[in-house]
This record gives sequence, structure tokens and C-alpha cells, in this order.
Amino acid sequence: MAPSLMDAFNPIFYPRTLAVIGASADPTKFGNIILSAIQEIGYGGKIYPVNPEGGEINGLKVFKSMPEIPGPVDFAIITVPASALFKALEECRDKGVKGVEILTSGFKETGTPEGRQMEAEIARFGQGDMRILGPNCFGIYCPESGLTILPGQNFSRETGPVGFLSQSGGLCADLGQIAKGLGIRFSKMVSYGNGCDVAACDLLEYFFADEKTRVIAGYVEGIEDGPRFLRLFRDNRGKKPVILWKAGLTATGGRAVQSHTGSLGGSQSVWEGALQQAGVIQVYSAEELIDATYAFLYLPAATGPRVAVMGGGGAISVAASDSLERLGLSVPYFSPPVLQKLKVSFPPVGNSLRNPVDLGNPMIPPSMLRKVMEAAGEDEGIDTLIVIQILFYILYQVRHRMGMADRPLSRFSFQPELLKACQEIKARHGKPIILVMPDITTEGERIDLEIEWRRERDAYQAAGFPVFRSLDRAARALAHVVRFQAVVS
Amino acid sequence: MAPSLMDAFNPIFYPRTLAVIGASADPTKFGNIILSAIQEIGYGGKIYPVNPEGGEINGLKVFKSMPEIPGPVDFAIITVPASALFKALEECRDKGVKGVEILTSGFKETGTPEGRQMEAEIARFGQGDMRILGPNCFGIYCPESGLTILPGQNFSRETGPVGFLSQSGGLCADLGQIAKGLGIRFSKMVSYGNGCDVAACDLLEYFFADEKTRVIAGYVEGIEDGPRFLRLFRDNRGKKPVILWKAGLTATGGRAVQSHTGSLGGSQSVWEGALQQAGVIQVYSAEELIDATYAFLYLPAATGPRVAVMGGGGAISVAASDSLERLGLSVPYFSPPVLQKLKVSFPPVGNSLRNPVDLGNPMIPPSMLRKVMEAAGEDEGIDTLIVIQILFYILYQVRHRMGMADRPLSRFSFQPELLKACQEIKARHGKPIILVMPDITTEGERIDLEIEWRRERDAYQAAGFPVFRSLDRAARALAHVVRFQAVVS
Repeated sequence: MAPSLMDAFNPIFYPRTLAVIGASADPTKFGNIILSAIQEIGYGGKIYPVNPEGGEINGLKVFKSMPEIPGPVDFAIITVPASALFKALEECRDKGVKGVEILTSGFKETGTPEGRQMEAEIARFGQGDMRILGPNCFGIYCPESGLTILPGQNFSRETGPVGFLSQSGGLCADLGQIAKGLGIRFSKMVSYGNGCDVAACDLLEYFFADEKTRVIAGYVEGIEDGPRFLRLFRDNRGKKPVILWKAGLTATGGRAVQSHTGSLGGSQSVWEGALQQAGVIQVYSAEELIDATYAFLYLPAATGPRVAVMGGGGAISVAASDSLERLGLSVPYFSPPVLQKLKVSFPPVGNSLRNPVDLGNPMIPPSMLRKVMEAAGEDEGIDTLIVIQILFYILYQVRHRMGMADRPLSRFSFQPELLKACQEIKARHGKPIILVMPDITTEGERIDLEIEWRRERDAYQAAGFPVFRSLDRAARALAHVVRFQAVVS
Repeated sequence: MAPSLMDAFNPIFYPRTLAVIGASADPTKFGNIILSAIQEIGYGGKIYPVNPEGGEINGLKVFKSMPEIPGPVDFAIITVPASALFKALEECRDKGVKGVEILTSGFKETGTPEGRQMEAEIARFGQGDMRILGPNCFGIYCPESGLTILPGQNFSRETGPVGFLSQSGGLCADLGQIAKGLGIRFSKMVSYGNGCDVAACDLLEYFFADEKTRVIAGYVEGIEDGPRFLRLFRDNRGKKPVILWKAGLTATGGRAVQSHTGSLGGSQSVWEGALQQAGVIQVYSAEELIDATYAFLYLPAATGPRVAVMGGGGAISVAASDSLERLGLSVPYFSPPVLQKLKVSFPPVGNSLRNPVDLGNPMIPPSMLRKVMEAAGEDEGIDTLIVIQILFYILYQVRHRMGMADRPLSRFSFQPELLKACQEIKARHGKPIILVMPDITTEGERIDLEIEWRRERDAYQAAGFPVFRSLDRAARALAHVVRFQAVVS
């Protein structure tokens, strides 16, 4: 990357001072929500609210215009109505602002000639030393500097390896919340809306170069410069995984992206061909995007396709076989000596030891499961382990049967012992282990199971093991990691 | 259906007396778990535990053998080891028992010649007046009579319209729990395991004829009699939807079903062709099976494919368009007069009114959403409404912004007002309404959102509106209902 792009983005992601133009005292207005969010998340630089009415908002002195602000301003967040936008942009340019994000909407995405015309005029402000994000965006989240998007006041302040770009601000807002529970942490997250200046190629180029970013994920409705996009991927090939949800590939979807960010959806086959050629990991929903990102964070780069699946309950193993094979993964038999060892440990009926290993009973204790994990760890024909645990049976049914309904569910958990087994097997054999914990009850009165589910999920995650709610989701995410290796090697 | 099949099944689903052969006092043994489950769920008939050791179990007198039981026994649950099975079957036959379920495993599914031989001998007992379920099954759940499966002690006692058949007992056990929260109720649920006597065709024929069953769902690993299967569907065509998960269609999956129930998986293309020809609604995972069953219960038979999608947040509407169109549904523009009316109610920027209707803000109040619902209700080009509500923003973010973190989340709910709007629009325009409530946080500390989610879900469901966790799942389930109509009309 030319040093100029890094130079251009640094004051945007790490501004020492920022202005909120259109700051408001009304808590229902964007101009208040974004100001409050940045204060609450704990941005460390200086904040200048700007509003012609002056006064004070959220304990900060309000400046009536940009020129009134003493000293330089690195970054500006603009939330004024469309009619006041150009004056704000001129003031920013004159003040020497390095970057602005425009939350205001009503431009290219309206589909009107006036909207397109105004957007072209906005874009012209981005051609000098000042870069523009938006319009029609939610802005930037950078945990390191304490910038955040609308309404990300409670996003994590921990920095992490994911660089995220999105034309949908709502998806950024959702993902920032989802990420907290999943232990997904970001280097930067950028909502760039209509992308009149900064758009996918600039952000990809930045993330490819950014040392803090290891995994890139995003939601795009259009790509502004196809040849540059493909060139970027050629240069990156295999260095960092890029997971992209390209929306608007159907006829109706293409229509919807036009009225969302004014992008052109494009033909499904052309796009899919180009993205595949570029080595992009293509996903088709928010859930798949999140699951794939999660898998790339928790699984090692060299995760292999030959999977051992173990747990109790036969349909689980049949389903495992079908869904893994459909995704290009395999569930091979154990080698004869390993199978022989297993047969010594288990009774001859009520289970199937060949892989998938169906132990017949979801309450199978960790000590028994450990023997299967050990076998899968030893077997040279196995790369990856998937362990299925249905907490409802382990916790609720066992407690019920023991007549101890007054005890907390966590008292019956296999988690400390099973986690220890996972850690030991992983350390000894160096194979990744994935947990699948389906939740089979959503009754209001069984909320205690969900509480315990989250507690156990957090414990496995903290130790580096990913946890999925279903085998299908685990398999789909794993397949993305495996395929990326196949592409780059 | 020949009256003989109804006659044969009635004493099995509604036994006046039943024996548990292999009853045990040990709470970890099947012979105790199944006995306890039937007592706890409140079976109304007479229960005779049978065990050569005699004595008393769970407060019931134990009989040392079947001949000792005074009077007739309609049904027997057999949990003895394989070695004692034939004696038990002989005693049942001699006692005039009408049906038995065999929980014991270790037969055809072992893949050994001995296993297959024993299974053939078991099957011979089913050729007279006594029908056999299993072996290697979890039994029957019939809420009306109070029979239940292993370990379904807490299944609902409410009867409902779903007839469920499954070669996987674990799936039955899971589904009985999942169903409780979703308001899915069963006429009967039958786990038939290896299916040596009673199997898919008998159960389908029964459910087609059973007046209490309106929707049939099931998990099958093999079909014992292809021509009969197809004939049954020809006779049923269009009368009752049948949702089937046929597992074992991949090579590895086919191997897994053999060691699960000894069935033959079969070729994917042959199966899919045959099932499609039969008008079966084919699904490929437990989640899809449940979602489709749920949709057939909550949506009217004549649900149409032209969908209006409404909510706040742009990526939602793009995603909606893509995922609905991929499934063969459409998201047509509103008619010009309806669009004109909408434009009067909404500001010209920050939203897209053309369908999907993106109101730009997930906190859009019910009074505004009602206007869009009214428009979609009026428009003759729209059949079905999907309303997206992200509770995190409506509840948590609004409460946060109002500085009222000490108040319960339910205080901020749109639910009573929005539910009222749903009811009025549905009554006035006769169009089905589906709610989608994505949950975007799984942090341990945000469990209050999940509690409120379940409370609201229950309220919508109680009023007859289905609620899905994601748009993709809603669309997939809706598409099954729409396609069934297309097949039968």
C-alpha cells in the first residue's frame, strides 16, 4: 500500500480531536446519540460539539461553527440535515479536517437525479486531503481510540484481530453486540454507507496492510472499482482470509440495494465467479458471516477436513455425516488399531464406535468421552474433533432424575472436567476441537438452561474452543476455514 | 385404511393396561426411567412392572412374570437385555398383548449376522395379532392417553395436530422439548427405531386416516416398502402435508444409518425424485424440520408467495429480498395508490417504502409500523406480511437512552400495541402475519433480553402468530407452506 493511504486513514481511526457537527441535546436525535456514545465508550481525545445555537450539551461547551474551535480538528462526525451539509463540509475543509463521516442520508440511495447530483458534489470534497465516509452511514468503531458507531456506546474496548467493513450500518450495530458474547474483537469496524469516497477497495487495502488486522470480514452491496478489487486480492492471496457477504445478487435484492446505498447489485454468476477467483470466502447471510468469522478466529490456519464427531444420540451422528459430507468434509472410519482400543472401553451394544461415534446416551460422562477424544487425537487419519453436548439432558434431566430440583443446574455440569480433557487432548495431539451445544428448549420457565449454556460457552471460549448452537452451523463454518487453506496452499 | 390397522393401533396408543418388562429400581436404567416417566406424565391406565426379582418399584407391586399379572394387558414396554428378549416376547404373545415397544438395542444395527438373525426372529412375533415397535427405539408419546417416550416425563399433556414418526429416539426426545416452547402439540409421536414390524408406511397410513392428525412430520432412515409408500401418498395427495427428513443420503450418512437403525440409506437423486413425486415436503436438518412443522401449524393452508417485509435497518431489507427470492417467493413493489398513501405518512429520507419497507430505524413505533401493515393488508398484490422487530434496540437501547436502567425491559416493549395491530390487520384483510425477532446478543449479562424475548414470543404465539429468530428461517419455512399449496392445487 502506498504510504499515503495509511497516512490518510491514521487520523481518521486515531483522531486526537473530533467535532460532532449537528450535536443535539435531544436524546432521540442522531446528533445526541452519537455524541453520547463516544463519551460513554470513553474516547480519549478532545470532543467539540458544534451547533449554531451554542450552549452546552452533555457537559461539553458547544461551538457555534467550526472556525470557532481553537486549534486543529482531526475528524468530524456530521449529522446535520442535507440542507446544511455543504456548509459543514466547507468548514471542515477550511479547518484542515483529515476525515469526516456523514451520518445524514437522502442522497444517491433515493434514486432521484437530485440525490445523485448532491452525492457527486459531496464526493468532490473527498478529492483533496480530506477523506469522506458515507453519506448514509453509521461511522467508525475503533476500540483502541474509543471511536464508536451509532449506537455502539456499549461496544467492547478490547482490540482484536477482525477488520470489518460494511455498507449497512445496522449490520455493524448488530455485529458489535453479537461479537461481545462470542469473544470476537475488532481492530476497526467501518460503516461506509453509500461509499461516495472511501469504499470497499480503500478499506480492504488498509486492512490488508494493517498489522492489527488478521481476519477481514464485510458486507458489500457494490464494488466501486472491479479491476482494483481483483488486484488487491491477487496481492493478498492467502495472507489474510476475507469473508464477504455480497448482497443484492437476486433481482429483488438488486433493487433493494439501490434504494439502500445506491449501489448496483449485479449478476449473481458474474459476481460469484469473480469473488471465487479472488479467493474470497463467500457467505449468504448475517449468521453465516458471523459463524465464519468466529471459526477463523478460534481455529488454527491449518485446520483439516477429516473430522471425528462424537456425542450421544444416533440421529446426531447420521446428521453429522450428511451435513459434513455435503460441505466437502469427511468423517472417515477410525484406523483398525484405534477402533480396537475403543472397543475395549465400550460395551458392544447401544453405540457405534466407527465415527461418527454415537455413544447412545447424551449423558455420557466426560471420562468416557475423553477416551473417544484420545482415540481421535491419536488417529493419524483425523484432523479435527467435534464434540456434541446437549446440556438439557446433562443438566436438567440428570438433576430431575436425582430428585435434586432445588440445586442449581451448574452443580451438574460436565464443563470443568470436559474442558480439562479438551485442553489436554489439544495440547497432546495439536488438533482443534469444536464444541456443539444444541439448545433444545426455549420455554420461558427453562431460562436457567440458557444461563448455564452461556456460562459454559464463555468458559470454553475463554480457553480457545469455539462453541456452536448446531452441528450444521459448526460444519458450515469449519468448511470455510478448510476451504481457505485449500485455496491458499 | 383397512379397519384392521386402526384396530391394531388403537390399543397401542390408548392402552387400558400396560406392562413394563424389565422394570428396575435403579434410576440410571431404562427400566426405571421409562416407568417413572409414564407415572410422572400421569398415564391413566393400570401399570404392571415386571421383573423376576419381584418386590415394589416406585410404589407399584412388581410381577415376577407376565402370566402372574391378573387380567389382560394391552401394551408392553420391553427393556430387558437382548438375552431375555425372546422369553418376554413369548409371554406377551401368550398373554394376548396387542402391541409391544422394544427399547433394547443390539440387533440389525450392529451389522453382524447374529444381530440380523435375531431381528428377523423378533419380527416374526409381529406377524400375528401383536404389533411390534422397535427394537432400538424410545417408544410412543400420546398426550391423550399419557403414554410417553424415554425420557419424556415433562412432555405436554395437551393434544395437538402433529403426527410425528421417527427412527431416531433422540430426535423425538429433543422435539418433545422444543415443541413446548413453540406451541407445537402432537396427536402422537412414535419412535420406531429399526422398524422390524411397524415402520414408516404403517405409521403414515395411520396418520393419514387419524382425524386428530392434521400435519405429519418425520425422520426416516429407510423406507421398507417403496411401492406402498408411493401409493399412500397418491391416495393422500394434498390432504395432509407430510414433512420428511430423509437422512443418510450421502455416502458417509448412508454408512451411519446402517449402524444406527440398520436401514439402507440409498441414492440421493433417486430418493429426492421419489419424495418430490410423492409430494413430500423434504427437509435436511432438525432445525428445518421443526421450522416447517411450526409454519404449517401457524399459517393458513392458502398462504401465498407475494410477501411484504417491513422493519428498520437497511441490510434487513436487502437480505430479505435476496433470501426470499432464492426460495421462490417474491417481494413485489406496492401498487402505486398504496405507495402514495404511505408516502404521505413517512418523511422522504432515511427509509425505503417500496417493499421491503425499510423504515431506517429499528425503534420505529407500532403506530408507524401499523401504517405499513395496513398498506400491505390493502394491497391486492401482497399475500403475506413479515414484520421484523429487533428487541435489543427497542428494549435495551431505548431504556439506556432514557436513563432508566433500573426499570424492567418489559416496560419498554412494543408487544401489546403491535400484537393488537397484527390482530386487527389480520382480521380486516385476512392475510397471515409472521414475526421475525432476531436476538443479537448472547452475553451472559444480557439474559434479561432473552427472558423478554420468550415472553413476547409466547404472547404472539398464543394469538396465533408465528415468531422466528431469523428472516432466513422464516422465509425457508414459509416457502415450504407456499410450495405445498402449489403442489396440491
